[in-house]
Amino acid sequence: MEMRRFPALNTFMKAHLVTGTAIAIGLVALFLPGKTFARVANSGNAEHAIRDLLRQQVEAWNQGDIDAFMNGYARSDKTAFVSGDDIHRGWNVVLQRYKTRYPDKTRMGKLTFRDLEIHTLSPDAAIATGRWHLQRAKDTPHGRFTLILRHLPEGWRIVHDHTSSAEPQK
Amino acid sequence: MEMRRFPALNTFMKAHLVTGTAIAIGLVALFLPGKTFARVANSGNAEHAIRDLLRQQVEAWNQGDIDAFMNGYARSDKTAFVSGDDIHRGWNVVLQRYKTRYPDKTRMGKLTFRDLEIHTLSPDAAIATGRWHLQRAKDTPHGRFTLILRHLPEGWRIVHDHTSSAEPQK
Repeated sequence: MEMRRFPALNTFMKAHLVTGTAIAIGLVALFLPGKTFARVANSGNAEHAIRDLLRQQVEAWNQGDIDAFMNGYARSDKTAFVSGDDIHRGWNVVLQRYKTRYPDKTRMGKLTFRDLEIHTLSPDAAIATGRWHLQRAKDTPHGRFTLILRHLPEGWRIVHDHTSSAEPQK
Repeated sequence: MEMRRFPALNTFMKAHLVTGTAIAIGLVALFLPGKTFARVANSGNAEHAIRDLLRQQVEAWNQGDIDAFMNGYARSDKTAFVSGDDIHRGWNVVLQRYKTRYPDKTRMGKLTFRDLEIHTLSPDAAIATGRWHLQRAKDTPHGRFTLILRHLPEGWRIVHDHTSSAEPQK
């Protein structure tokens, strides 16, 4: 009511209140729900993208293409492959391990992944677990893997792979 | 200069600009750097807390106390222990596996963890990797582990454990 006496001031103040409210809503929308929505949206996308990455790895393996298979791993000196009591660290070191251990298509056999489960830990980190199985002429090595993936500029990539094998059948 | 003619309005506008700026800075500080600072602060705390948790696990193991050792794991039906081609899912199931496999102090031996590395993946998720070694009267089983931990209301807890063993020496 006091405002009525100063109509110009009243209009000016209203305009400022509207602007202030708009700025406040805008900032909250930008920083709080923005992150929440991104997290929810990423979660489904992440699982889809990671399943796709692992499917491409299996296809590459079954074409005898270890280089293409290695596209699933982050090209970093920190990328790690753990098995037994061994760790191989660095994308190139992991590549060499695969090439030494699986020198040809006979040794590579036919790879399948089963029981795949993917959980996002944050918008840029996820865990993928599952079973691996190699069908070869003379044996069928198999076991489980735990993968940690990060969302890098080039997409989701494996940064840590812990793979274990079933005891060989006797 | 135009403002000079309406000194009251000028003062009012200045006050509003100051208020508006303060609100804007306040909101940005609340939602953006707040999260960033929390992340940085958590990172060191997380590593410290996780090292402490694992140290407590080793102490419990070496006192023959598997129940206390199990405090390191999240009390959840989803907590998973992976080794070889096996998965044990659920806190109780993991507890039973340990009790069956290590029924007494002779079988439990003396546990040490080595080469421990901890990386936070987000403010509430981390990966811990390292080597485990059991000194027993007749053998020394050993290998590597990859742990995924989450920050739960009760503290950091292991939600996923992938453990592998070196091939037994022949």
